[in-house]
Amino acid sequence: MARTRVHSQFVSLDGFSAGEFVTFDEPIGEAGRLFSHFDGQGIDGVHTIDGPITLDRTLFALWGQGIGAEIMGRRKFGPQTGPWPDDGWRGWWGGEPPFRTPCFVLTHHPRDPLEFENGTTFHFVDAGIDEVLAMAYEAAGGLDVRIGGGPSTIRQFLAADLVDFMNIAIVPITLGRGQPLWQGLPDVQDRFSIETIGSASGLTHQLWNRVR
Amino acid sequence: MARTRVHSQFVSLDGFSAGEFVTFDEPIGEAGRLFSHFDGQGIDGVHTIDGPITLDRTLFALWGQGIGAEIMGRRKFGPQTGPWPDDGWRGWWGGEPPFRTPCFVLTHHPRDPLEFENGTTFHFVDAGIDEVLAMAYEAAGGLDVRIGGGPSTIRQFLAADLVDFMNIAIVPITLGRGQPLWQGLPDVQDRFSIETIGSASGLTHQLWNRVR
Repeated sequence: MARTRVHSQFVSLDGFSAGEFVTFDEPIGEAGRLFSHFDGQGIDGVHTIDGPITLDRTLFALWGQGIGAEIMGRRKFGPQTGPWPDDGWRGWWGGEPPFRTPCFVLTHHPRDPLEFENGTTFHFVDAGIDEVLAMAYEAAGGLDVRIGGGPSTIRQFLAADLVDFMNIAIVPITLGRGQPLWQGLPDVQDRFSIETIGSASGLTHQLWNRVR
Repeated sequence: MARTRVHSQFVSLDGFSAGEFVTFDEPIGEAGRLFSHFDGQGIDGVHTIDGPITLDRTLFALWGQGIGAEIMGRRKFGPQTGPWPDDGWRGWWGGEPPFRTPCFVLTHHPRDPLEFENGTTFHFVDAGIDEVLAMAYEAAGGLDVRIGGGPSTIRQFLAADLVDFMNIAIVPITLGRGQPLWQGLPDVQDRFSIETIGSASGLTHQLWNRVR
């Protein structure tokens, strides 16, 4: 049975998963240190890694495995707010977005899809999360659906009990401010079985599997 | 650069990785307890797992990722010795061997290849390990090559310093006898950087990356 999955979700010791403000220069706000353990290697599989196949990279390599569609918040696609300006923005990723699947961008301002040659298509949808999840499963053709973030999007899906699996990476830093991952989710852990794995890198990985 | 990889290699606390004798009834001899933590799930990717995505399953799911060919010892293919009898034997796996790639079976008794509809082809080659590795890389078309075992085959490739990556799973049992994994390999660890990961299941995983 296909699953709704969250991958490589970095969170600080004080529970922040992104910066407070997103700008063109800082896609994840001022919280760049959250990603200091991540070099992007292996998201297409461990055989694409140039260097050691480590625990961290093995877990990050799960990101694309068997994923047929992604759902993301508008902020993950770009820093704009309100009606879309005519600025030619096609996302942070240049001509080769790493997704290679349909991606559903949650926005109150629908617009035409953006298609890339590598299989990535951004669909801009103004819909409830149940509805967009149904669209994503339809587009995924039997594969799993990834909730790609940011934190507030993940919080919404967690609150609605729509997440089947999460790979959290707890980063040994404090941020003091930013976008909280756990806000408004008291006892969310009770719905999951959680495996915790220490890594030599200093990260703590957690695999959250929803108890069905 | 493509790699030579060993995956999901189970080994007991006293260093045995298979039983002493292989028969038609016992493909890994009397050492079946070595595999008591392995249910075969996820070897085609974590999205194929029916149940929790655990650390163990995540690591076992690396088995096929980016693999384009396998090399195996004759014992892994079947229990026969000497010239091949005319017994219709097509391996332990029925009509759907899990490999789905070319597989090179080391034997002093070459014979015609055996082809399956799912992409698995067994080639029976009487060649040195350098030579068969070159064949496997050629067949893998840029992907990695897996050394599929048994233990004596892995030992040969380790002794010749031809292994780039290994995922060992140390099982908390003693066997007392069987096929040793480490025999004749003094200080083999000096050629690798080794990451050790405890699992809630009782297994200890090790990721061995060759220091280049």
